[in-house]
Amino acid sequence: MAPIQNARVLFNSVPTDYPVPGETTVYDTTQTIDLETVPLNGGFLLKLLVLSIDPYFRGRMRAPEKKSYAAGFTIGAPLEGFGIGVVLRSETPSVEVGKYIYGPSIRHQEYVVLPELGALEIIEKHPDLPWSAYVGAAGMPGKTAYFGWKEYSDAKPGEVAFVTSGAGAVGSVVVQLAKQAGMKVIASAGSEEKVQYMKDIGADVAFNYKTTDTRAVLEKEGPIDVYWDNVGGEVLDAALEFAAIHGRFLECGMISGYNTGHQGIKNLNLVVAKTLHIHGILIFRLQAKYDKEFYATIPAKLASGEIKYAEDVTKGLDKVGDVILAVQKGDNKAKAVVVVAEE
Amino acid sequence: MAPIQNARVLFNSVPTDYPVPGETTVYDTTQTIDLETVPLNGGFLLKLLVLSIDPYFRGRMRAPEKKSYAAGFTIGAPLEGFGIGVVLRSETPSVEVGKYIYGPSIRHQEYVVLPELGALEIIEKHPDLPWSAYVGAAGMPGKTAYFGWKEYSDAKPGEVAFVTSGAGAVGSVVVQLAKQAGMKVIASAGSEEKVQYMKDIGADVAFNYKTTDTRAVLEKEGPIDVYWDNVGGEVLDAALEFAAIHGRFLECGMISGYNTGHQGIKNLNLVVAKTLHIHGILIFRLQAKYDKEFYATIPAKLASGEIKYAEDVTKGLDKVGDVILAVQKGDNKAKAVVVVAEE
Repeated sequence: MAPIQNARVLFNSVPTDYPVPGETTVYDTTQTIDLETVPLNGGFLLKLLVLSIDPYFRGRMRAPEKKSYAAGFTIGAPLEGFGIGVVLRSETPSVEVGKYIYGPSIRHQEYVVLPELGALEIIEKHPDLPWSAYVGAAGMPGKTAYFGWKEYSDAKPGEVAFVTSGAGAVGSVVVQLAKQAGMKVIASAGSEEKVQYMKDIGADVAFNYKTTDTRAVLEKEGPIDVYWDNVGGEVLDAALEFAAIHGRFLECGMISGYNTGHQGIKNLNLVVAKTLHIHGILIFRLQAKYDKEFYATIPAKLASGEIKYAEDVTKGLDKVGDVILAVQKGDNKAKAVVVVAEE
Repeated sequence: MAPIQNARVLFNSVPTDYPVPGETTVYDTTQTIDLETVPLNGGFLLKLLVLSIDPYFRGRMRAPEKKSYAAGFTIGAPLEGFGIGVVLRSETPSVEVGKYIYGPSIRHQEYVVLPELGALEIIEKHPDLPWSAYVGAAGMPGKTAYFGWKEYSDAKPGEVAFVTSGAGAVGSVVVQLAKQAGMKVIASAGSEEKVQYMKDIGADVAFNYKTTDTRAVLEKEGPIDVYWDNVGGEVLDAALEFAAIHGRFLECGMISGYNTGHQGIKNLNLVVAKTLHIHGILIFRLQAKYDKEFYATIPAKLASGEIKYAEDVTKGLDKVGDVILAVQKGDNKAKAVVVVAEE
């Protein structure tokens, strides 16, 4: 069989502002691959199916000398992120042909030979769910919500939860887990469309933080037993102010400070006075404890509609640059996914 | 038997600045009591032995209309706080004569009839410890250290702990628990005498925060896996900056803001990036879980010297006002205790 095209999306230059498709990233078709003869050297050959496009990509698009917690992308090399592929050939005993692979460092490249499974995992698909769901509600964002909620919420029926970015890929799952735990759920987001979506998935109180005062809502509807934080800043201060005694704060992100710098948190002294508990959430640390349970329960609930999810699917590896920009501008309607190939 | 004097320390007026002995509080000897005939009405008669004098007293010396988490003292009524008494007579089946009673709301009054045990508890004395120890290292401050440490430190050998107010009644116990857990211990306090004491009880790195830059110490000796916070403010920000991944922050107090107001915490966003865990500590919530274990282990270790403790004992109920002032000014040498009577 003759070599075929092996398209890639390369990180081409560090953006100064928003990432520019064709400049920050380049869709490259110069490479070819012979799927039958490419040497595996004990590894396996993966065909890319689905890519997750996430907000954190922007932080990885930086100059190599700038350090941060997530590794930067390498100029001239393919982007990488959460994605799913299918195994075409294998010399790795634990990785059989036809298995589906999911993980955080899938290259934006149609075909790739990987030396070992490493941090990737073999996953199975529910017959009534598309693979795209497995990078969203059934993937990293859903796991972030589920693992964090299970480990730290200590949710009790009748308590009050406040979920920020409640229409997002993580927050929308949190809203529904909180409702299923018998809680009253307050949820915030930045548009009327998102407010409607939060109501549709069960939020008792949903509001647009751009037009409604968060403190006034929390004063009326609180105090808050569980706070799911995606924003930090003033909203976190308001949540501290209206926290219940023994409240739990699940810190998933503080997007309010990502571009403009983090402001001082004024009410942290209430952690002592109210005996609050604040937890930074990282799914990798909770993976071993909850991963099996997650796959055993959540995909079936997504398939049956017991837990609702939304996704914004774009087809074609060549569209990655456009989708990255849309995500940075907030133009995506729901969890952004690029489908590179069907099976 | 004829009635005898039943002296009390009354809250007399709200102080504007430091509490003034004889004005803020008054030693009153006008009441008498007949120990043999005073009606018990199903309750029991307690003779006061020991009182704990604590910094939080100042917060309770306020006008009745001012609300806070701890109840205010009542003008014209006796002060109350942690203390120990012995049961002289009893009509309460669960409270036998000769038993010793410890609790958070012991009145500053030589003899008192109590209707029920309530939040008080019956405790036993180790033969080699004085009762005074049972309001210090074997009482509330020791329990705060022990309960908080047991529940939230997740201490592992070889990790690094940073303890603020490491020479105090709580901090000095934390320093020793951390050492016994096999940790490297950094401890800070505000005088050379206290630095020496922290070294004597085992701190690996002890420094005077008034003359040494906390950030420089933490940068050199960290990162910190467990932070015991008694101060908040800039020191908390430094601890966040030099925290290890998955660090645990045990929030016992934020004294830096008690009198001058709490400043904004700038580095709280690191809770997400480093997946930190911050816990407000309140001993009452952990009482049921750890109280028996505490009394079964800690007093024996204090008696044998395996855990060291210091106390500053004053004799006489009439000295309470002076000791309160000394504690507010920081003139006490160690945990302040007033011994009212021997057995």
